[in-house]
Amino acid sequence: MDKHEIFEAIAKLFKEKGFYNTSIKDISESVGLKGGSLYYHITSKEDALFKICKDAIDTHLTNLEKAVNTDDDPKTKLIKVIENHIDYFTTNFYKTSVFLIETKALGVEYQKQYIKKRDRFESHIRQVLREGIKEGIFRNGDVKLMTFAILGMLNWMVIWYRPEGKWGTKKLKHEFMEMILSGIEK
Amino acid sequence: MDKHEIFEAIAKLFKEKGFYNTSIKDISESVGLKGGSLYYHITSKEDALFKICKDAIDTHLTNLEKAVNTDDDPKTKLIKVIENHIDYFTTNFYKTSVFLIETKALGVEYQKQYIKKRDRFESHIRQVLREGIKEGIFRNGDVKLMTFAILGMLNWMVIWYRPEGKWGTKKLKHEFMEMILSGIEK
Repeated sequence: MDKHEIFEAIAKLFKEKGFYNTSIKDISESVGLKGGSLYYHITSKEDALFKICKDAIDTHLTNLEKAVNTDDDPKTKLIKVIENHIDYFTTNFYKTSVFLIETKALGVEYQKQYIKKRDRFESHIRQVLREGIKEGIFRNGDVKLMTFAILGMLNWMVIWYRPEGKWGTKKLKHEFMEMILSGIEK
Repeated sequence: MDKHEIFEAIAKLFKEKGFYNTSIKDISESVGLKGGSLYYHITSKEDALFKICKDAIDTHLTNLEKAVNTDDDPKTKLIKVIENHIDYFTTNFYKTSVFLIETKALGVEYQKQYIKKRDRFESHIRQVLREGIKEGIFRNGDVKLMTFAILGMLNWMVIWYRPEGKWGTKKLKHEFMEMILSGIEK
């Protein structure tokens, strides 16, 4: 298992058993590592949770900022944001699930860092929507609620999506793009 | 506290501390009842979780079936479904959160019952979408993914909505209705 696979496997355990019900023994068995070899990657299950959440939110933020800090028009930016989101979701499904659902198990300090980044993430999307409204591409509306609606549509995948399921990334992008763009375009 | 308030208070504890971190003592303190008075309502925290989930899904289903088993056109049905969903969400916020997020803590038998009802709920929405597509009111699309997109938009409230927050039910209905209807209408 490479690093990505190890953390996806741990995240899968957290999602399926819940963070509190997962023991270090479970982790050790699922990744096939113990003692020093396991401790090279994680020092505790709290450490694993933090690393999963940090990696997920940092990657999301980096991709998002790459997409929005360009001279593209707001619609193109939004399309890239949605595509990135679905790409990350489908390739890091369990990590994403844990980072969306289990963050309350993080310590207070880690939670603060996480919330700060999540707020930055959402504020970028609101900014793209504001630009689009200003340019007359998107209809007028409450950008905060529009952002929550878009993220809700995408993040709810955590509940129904399965990596082994029948929907490919292309199909998901097509359907969600249609819903979101028709939902906000003028 | 009446019955509704007692279960909202327990659900709030489950949401904030997580089901596994909540003790019967926490419950007893938050609802101000102990011994026989508490046991009149719940026999254990598992029992409380089950009752919260059962009440939430049963009420959702009853409201939904009232809305869809009519001669209304598909758009009117869908509007009622969305309005009901937001109404229930805003008046039973913590119960809804628990029933959406914590069901994996339910026992196997309870989970089966829950999943059966959830599937029935989703199949009704798909049916309304199919009717709308057939009548040429809604655009063609994958009704399963459209249903997940609609439910995702609404259910994600579990993450960002706060009962004490600034958004009233009317505003929420307005914004979400706009997103969903523009997202699926022809």
